[in-house]
Amino acid sequence: MFHLLDIIGTMAFAMSGALTAMSKKLDPFGVFIIAFVTAVGGGTLRDVMIGRTPVGWMQDPTYVYVIVWGFILAIIFRKKLDRLRTSLALFDTIGLGVFTLIGIQKGIDYHLHPVICIALGTMTACFGGVTRDILCVEIPVIFRREVYATICIIGGILFFALRKMNVENDVLYLATSSIIIVIRLLAVKYKWHLAPLEHK
Amino acid sequence: MFHLLDIIGTMAFAMSGALTAMSKKLDPFGVFIIAFVTAVGGGTLRDVMIGRTPVGWMQDPTYVYVIVWGFILAIIFRKKLDRLRTSLALFDTIGLGVFTLIGIQKGIDYHLHPVICIALGTMTACFGGVTRDILCVEIPVIFRREVYATICIIGGILFFALRKMNVENDVLYLATSSIIIVIRLLAVKYKWHLAPLEHK
Amino acid sequence: MFHLLDIIGTMAFAMSGALTAMSKKLDPFGVFIIAFVTAVGGGTLRDVMIGRTPVGWMQDPTYVYVIVWGFILAIIFRKKLDRLRTSLALFDTIGLGVFTLIGIQKGIDYHLHPVICIALGTMTACFGGVTRDILCVEIPVIFRREVYATICIIGGILFFALRKMNVENDVLYLATSSIIIVIRLLAVKYKWHLAPLEHK
Repeated sequence: MFHLLDIIGTMAFAMSGALTAMSKKLDPFGVFIIAFVTAVGGGTLRDVMIGRTPVGWMQDPTYVYVIVWGFILAIIFRKKLDRLRTSLALFDTIGLGVFTLIGIQKGIDYHLHPVICIALGTMTACFGGVTRDILCVEIPVIFRREVYATICIIGGILFFALRKMNVENDVLYLATSSIIIVIRLLAVKYKWHLAPLEHK
Repeated sequence: MFHLLDIIGTMAFAMSGALTAMSKKLDPFGVFIIAFVTAVGGGTLRDVMIGRTPVGWMQDPTYVYVIVWGFILAIIFRKKLDRLRTSLALFDTIGLGVFTLIGIQKGIDYHLHPVICIALGTMTACFGGVTRDILCVEIPVIFRREVYATICIIGGILFFALRKMNVENDVLYLATSSIIIVIRLLAVKYKWHLAPLEHK
Repeated sequence: MFHLLDIIGTMAFAMSGALTAMSKKLDPFGVFIIAFVTAVGGGTLRDVMIGRTPVGWMQDPTYVYVIVWGFILAIIFRKKLDRLRTSLALFDTIGLGVFTLIGIQKGIDYHLHPVICIALGTMTACFGGVTRDILCVEIPVIFRREVYATICIIGGILFFALRKMNVENDVLYLATSSIIIVIRLLAVKYKWHLAPLEHK
């Protein structure tokens, strides 16, 4: 079940990357690389920083195949994706919840401090998108408009609060990912965002 | 022989980086770093991702010296490099072929899946240039115009096809690098490129 | 003492990152990430490249707390920071000296060649700022105007020259960091910079 959600999230991230790249008029190789990087960039950065190498996607070619499919689907349906925007946002949000949990779990596996685990969860969920924006020469959208990363941090804090209460693992996972997904959907619906900080 | 080609490719990549940086009016330190990153960026990313650390160029200062020479030559001949463009493109192409093979070989050494090995070969050959463009705040040229990475992928597929037929190692290396170099030279001569994918 | 200087440098780097991010009108999360990356980016890149994982700041949450404080202070005093510019430049310069030494020392711990150690010192001191500029979609300032990295390299060469003369460790550290700090302050005061290299 969890693995299936991981696959759905990976594909949604790959498609979102492909769409951004196509709007920049990149060639097919460029579109594929941006799709790839958006999907696995966060987990790759996490693995490299904690020393879990070769990084995750190199040990399981499934991810490569999923991304290839996401890339192909994004190209085929590129003219219809505006109408599919809602489904895509839903899948993307599932990715957000699942990837945050995967990142936190990896931190726990490496016996890192809860604060660091939350940072790893946020990194796993958000830095694929950051890399996508940097490769497209844009200031990353999550630094400007979206309450995206903040939700991962809230989810992470909740995770460790529940864990301290000895909540069972299944419930812990379900509760944390659900709360991340629900807040994110509300944020999209009601256009929540953080006000920019200006220094003058 | 193979090592000599590696050196030639490294120097060509360093010079191409230095030229891009000078066209952006960077100061000498900036030019040097861009030369450095263009030459070793792909291999560094590969080594970090597979966990081969300290990364390659840290274990053999030869690369640093070669890059210093490439940097100095690029500065001295900077006004004449237009006329030397053809030789430079040839050396750069040798780098492309050799670096692809080195990346594939590292993947095999780490017992990774052929698909991942081809990704590592492409990364080794192409991501120095991607990093160069990002540091110069340009959308990477290989995502937009050049059939550069696609040739590495074709070369990689050929490599594993021949390998399955139990072709001898020397022939395998020679055939793969030659085919990459020949296709690349034809692509430059006849201005082959992939059409951009637009989604509207 | 050395650890205290490390903390001061980390906080100064975090504040410089926060100020750059606020001038780009990022939201609070974006400002925090840029502060974080400016403070630990150089050391993180160094650790990942030499294989010292999980990277430094993951093993000691002190850094995270220092950066959170730097972030908060930068927000509170953001309207007064122009008047505090001199103190901030001083702290930043302390960071430059200390981080260069930390990077060199890590290279020695890993038995790397002096040339590579100097590269690691320069990377530790300078690449946080490079990452900050890349995330803000600017050509890194140290590639264009500032004699910043060049001073780290000079300091590194001095370090190994003194070391060859069997200078005691304490004196070695004090002399190298002092010289880096003094040259940097002179460079800021007299606006020293390297002329750009143009190729046409």
